[in-house]
Amino acid sequence: MKVAIVMGSKSDIKIAMEAKEVLDSFGIENEMRVISAHRTPRIAIEFAERLEENGFDLVIAIAGKAAHLAGVLASLTILPVIGVPAKSSTLDGIDSLLSTVQMPKGIPVATVAIDGGYNAGILSAEILSIRDNDLRNKLKSHKEKLKLETIKNDEEISKL
Amino acid sequence: MKVAIVMGSKSDIKIAMEAKEVLDSFGIENEMRVISAHRTPRIAIEFAERLEENGFDLVIAIAGKAAHLAGVLASLTILPVIGVPAKSSTLDGIDSLLSTVQMPKGIPVATVAIDGGYNAGILSAEILSIRDNDLRNKLKSHKEKLKLETIKNDEEISKL
Amino acid sequence: MKVAIVMGSKSDIKIAMEAKEVLDSFGIENEMRVISAHRTPRIAIEFAERLEENGFDLVIAIAGKAAHLAGVLASLTILPVIGVPAKSSTLDGIDSLLSTVQMPKGIPVATVAIDGGYNAGILSAEILSIRDNDLRNKLKSHKEKLKLETIKNDEEISKL
Amino acid sequence: MKVAIVMGSKSDIKIAMEAKEVLDSFGIENEMRVISAHRTPRIAIEFAERLEENGFDLVIAIAGKAAHLAGVLASLTILPVIGVPAKSSTLDGIDSLLSTVQMPKGIPVATVAIDGGYNAGILSAEILSIRDNDLRNKLKSHKEKLKLETIKNDEEISKL
Amino acid sequence: MKVAIVMGSKSDIKIAMEAKEVLDSFGIENEMRVISAHRTPRIAIEFAERLEENGFDLVIAIAGKAAHLAGVLASLTILPVIGVPAKSSTLDGIDSLLSTVQMPKGIPVATVAIDGGYNAGILSAEILSIRDNDLRNKLKSHKEKLKLETIKNDEEISKL
Amino acid sequence: MKVAIVMGSKSDIKIAMEAKEVLDSFGIENEMRVISAHRTPRIAIEFAERLEENGFDLVIAIAGKAAHLAGVLASLTILPVIGVPAKSSTLDGIDSLLSTVQMPKGIPVATVAIDGGYNAGILSAEILSIRDNDLRNKLKSHKEKLKLETIKNDEEISKL
Amino acid sequence: MKVAIVMGSKSDIKIAMEAKEVLDSFGIENEMRVISAHRTPRIAIEFAERLEENGFDLVIAIAGKAAHLAGVLASLTILPVIGVPAKSSTLDGIDSLLSTVQMPKGIPVATVAIDGGYNAGILSAEILSIRDNDLRNKLKSHKEKLKLETIKNDEEISKL
Amino acid sequence: MKVAIVMGSKSDIKIAMEAKEVLDSFGIENEMRVISAHRTPRIAIEFAERLEENGFDLVIAIAGKAAHLAGVLASLTILPVIGVPAKSSTLDGIDSLLSTVQMPKGIPVATVAIDGGYNAGILSAEILSIRDNDLRNKLKSHKEKLKLETIKNDEEISKL
Repeated sequence: MKVAIVMGSKSDIKIAMEAKEVLDSFGIENEMRVISAHRTPRIAIEFAERLEENGFDLVIAIAGKAAHLAGVLASLTILPVIGVPAKSSTLDGIDSLLSTVQMPKGIPVATVAIDGGYNAGILSAEILSIRDNDLRNKLKSHKEKLKLETIKNDEEISKL
Repeated sequence: MKVAIVMGSKSDIKIAMEAKEVLDSFGIENEMRVISAHRTPRIAIEFAERLEENGFDLVIAIAGKAAHLAGVLASLTILPVIGVPAKSSTLDGIDSLLSTVQMPKGIPVATVAIDGGYNAGILSAEILSIRDNDLRNKLKSHKEKLKLETIKNDEEISKL
Repeated sequence: MKVAIVMGSKSDIKIAMEAKEVLDSFGIENEMRVISAHRTPRIAIEFAERLEENGFDLVIAIAGKAAHLAGVLASLTILPVIGVPAKSSTLDGIDSLLSTVQMPKGIPVATVAIDGGYNAGILSAEILSIRDNDLRNKLKSHKEKLKLETIKNDEEISKL
Repeated sequence: MKVAIVMGSKSDIKIAMEAKEVLDSFGIENEMRVISAHRTPRIAIEFAERLEENGFDLVIAIAGKAAHLAGVLASLTILPVIGVPAKSSTLDGIDSLLSTVQMPKGIPVATVAIDGGYNAGILSAEILSIRDNDLRNKLKSHKEKLKLETIKNDEEISKL
Repeated sequence: MKVAIVMGSKSDIKIAMEAKEVLDSFGIENEMRVISAHRTPRIAIEFAERLEENGFDLVIAIAGKAAHLAGVLASLTILPVIGVPAKSSTLDGIDSLLSTVQMPKGIPVATVAIDGGYNAGILSAEILSIRDNDLRNKLKSHKEKLKLETIKNDEEISKL
Repeated sequence: MKVAIVMGSKSDIKIAMEAKEVLDSFGIENEMRVISAHRTPRIAIEFAERLEENGFDLVIAIAGKAAHLAGVLASLTILPVIGVPAKSSTLDGIDSLLSTVQMPKGIPVATVAIDGGYNAGILSAEILSIRDNDLRNKLKSHKEKLKLETIKNDEEISKL
Repeated sequence: MKVAIVMGSKSDIKIAMEAKEVLDSFGIENEMRVISAHRTPRIAIEFAERLEENGFDLVIAIAGKAAHLAGVLASLTILPVIGVPAKSSTLDGIDSLLSTVQMPKGIPVATVAIDGGYNAGILSAEILSIRDNDLRNKLKSHKEKLKLETIKNDEEISKL
Repeated sequence: MKVAIVMGSKSDIKIAMEAKEVLDSFGIENEMRVISAHRTPRIAIEFAERLEENGFDLVIAIAGKAAHLAGVLASLTILPVIGVPAKSSTLDGIDSLLSTVQMPKGIPVATVAIDGGYNAGILSAEILSIRDNDLRNKLKSHKEKLKLETIKNDEEISKL
């Protein structure tokens, strides 16, 4: 199983690394790429068309402003595409969110929160767990870990 | 493979039926439910906790306003949860969208467009195709069908 | 009389402390907890269901982004739930506000301003004063104190 | 126990009646008034100052646009004030919501959803149940009724 | 002729000083006050009712968040009230703007831009010039000064 | 005393008539014009430059979308300009409001609510009352009338 | 000179016809097409790459929701691309506008108002007039016509 | 061929310089000006009316808040006007964007992204390339350069 993490611009690297670290921690193979729907459209097209033959099962697409990357990839592949809207210097991310999530009938993008690289990693694991029971167990451990962290915080705070 | 289509209120039935019709057309088993995160929280919890043992692979959750349904289910299962924000009588759907998509670190919801029941169905098929090659072929046919419809419209319009 | 101050994440501590300080100053017993609707949902449920038997009269719930905490607690208790939307790193708090206030028919959340921990404390005192005349007097003193502060500022500024 | 239902304009009557019907069904005495923060400010002031001596325990204030009614009443009483933002002909209710909920430090308004008259009624009952165990039981029945309606809808829909 | 500059909170002093400096430069008498619609409502009322007898011709009201100050004053006087929405720590000023400008039928507030203290001063001068030709000439000089500054900037920039 | 009521498009006539009727009822002379900042800019300029010599004291400018009319007139006259944002077929009036109110330093527009023709009329009377005591009395009667209408509504509603 | 009018969906035909009628009235050759960035991406790509060799000078792209059409075409051609955001059933067009206008560095889209088919036609004529003086004269006549219509409306209204 | 770069205020110089540098790099003659629609309206008018006789082919107009500059120039010339909304200290640029793009029927402004000075330069080159094949080649090189930069970033990132 292999996930492509595609960012529209090098400046999205922080969000991409959050996704990558989650995937690495789940033992999911992944490749990180910079491909722009606007600056390298032909590369984006070729990349999207060859996702299956190159062994990918899933794509994470990270982009900001008029964020077309996830939608463009989704239009050219039948693999699930997870979209991560990236906050940029104006409008606090609402432009990226609407450009990513408001896809027309027939071509969905599975959108997570603005700057949600971490959650794109978790959603990837959930989707891939469809055919990998081992991943389901890891996801259960992850949920357990989240729980324990919160409980630890609760113990600390409730003493204040 | 089986998909749960959960709506927070009976009034979301139109969106739910759009998802159901897509799943039916792809030959994906599905069950349609009315479960409210707010009016039947304990049922929601029990339902979420038994999704796996009841043979579900995926959940579509449809809700409006302060739309917590998808998030609540996602907090209690490691199955992928697709969230569909439903437009209600005020704010044009922006409340439903933000309540569904802006999930915190660790608990993603795969959000589609406001009122996007049809796309929730397609995204389900894409996710389930992770372990079902047959679905991949059906998705390719679907993409082809979308293309042919658009080409037909193009032929008609370009004559005007 | 006892108030539960619940925050969805340890990072909401500043807002929680503002509420706590108000309650302390009014002599209202309170407990501060970290409970996440998404990371510790089962704890949230159990906590909500036992609020009455544990002697609580009121809940303050603080959460950000797709802020479901107040709504989830409100769905499981008939105690009044005060929701405090917390501003996070994107969208300036509008997501938290709409996720908290736009509750469906039957399950209200008494929502205060974004980051309004202080006001959640005051609103708690007002609600509890329903059965405690002493609190009413303290609230009148508080209103008097606000007035005197403003008058003092007025005197200072009107000399400029 | 007695609740004042105040609307800023006669045109808010539909929302007010929803609140009134809930209060009536819970056996809570109530009075319905048209008092405008802007058109009858002195009446609003006098009304707010005499709430306690007139035997009121709680105020529901309904207003649209630059909705100051709830805030003005809250500034003049230490009773809890529930604010209901009313959607008007422009801006889909966001102006009413922000004018009602974004109250400054010290003067909270317990805000419910836009056009949320029904929920204002429920929240009133929850607040008054602070000193009335009988109301707690009625609220539990109400929650049960909501549950049963949803279950009935679920049974109907899950057969489709 | 005399203008009251009223701010809802001491923290609005910077905006108030901008208005004051404009009025001073136009030779218009003014008084600066801190009066809160929410913390000192009775003072606000008395202040508004005595504006005329105290010799005021115009009020500038500066407030943030659920900014009711201008509206409350306008409801109690027939003098023109200029509203200045103040940007606070959340929502970038849109709450203040809508709470100030969206006044109901019959009670207008003359709203200027968010944080627009300077322009509130100019608008005051324009309004007072209705009965003072001398002010008209000063306003023409002011417009001329703005023009000359821009021309100077133009000369500087066009050389780059 | 004379007021110019200028609308950017014939379609704004309903808003303009509301302003006109208020002015007529106050006995304030007025002229109604269709002048577009964008379609007849030179006429707008000439009109603005001759406002004083043509005996006008005040301008009401009504426009929608990228509503520049009020701002353009304000840039060319030192008379007070009241801006009325008109709601059009998209964006619910927020574009018109921001284009009218967010004026730069030095050139204010006295903005009233979206579609607020009536209030533009009242604000005109308030401004003109600066030099006309008779108008002050009429404004007081108007406030009284608003009060009586509300009291009548209150009597009717409080019987329900 | 030839303009391509491309719409993302047959449902955008009304906006497209407004553009076409303007172009026809200016004597500018044009072709109307239905091409979807999402449903027929490969056709969109091929179409964009052959725009120059097929004799086009300019593209008008009309699309709604997550409106990627204009951006996708702009990424594949160096011809000017005019984007027209189309209002759809949710969010009042703000999603379409932001998806069209907020293009990243290097790939502009010349965006006009929501549903602005007519203005896309006029902007096309302005751009093509860069090399066609005859068009400049027609544009001047058009501006004259707009002026005369407004003057006619002014005469009619100013008599009321 | 010559482009006018007009900014409404000296503070927009950074955006203007980005446009200028693009134009310089494409060998397109340009002049940079500070002209305010509000502070120097008569200069703006005269400037707009003489654009053609002064040899300009195109205007770039940069302004913030109630950004009327582009619209005012567009109303007075038949040359294409590119509008650049500038982000200011409140509202994150949405006021500038809507004031620039939402132009009425007949008077388009070719709007680019908020703070999009660079893209205004590129769009100018695209428009001028209508009559200059040499520019087309430069634009193709520019697209190639963007591609190569992205490919270089891709190579770097994909090694991480």
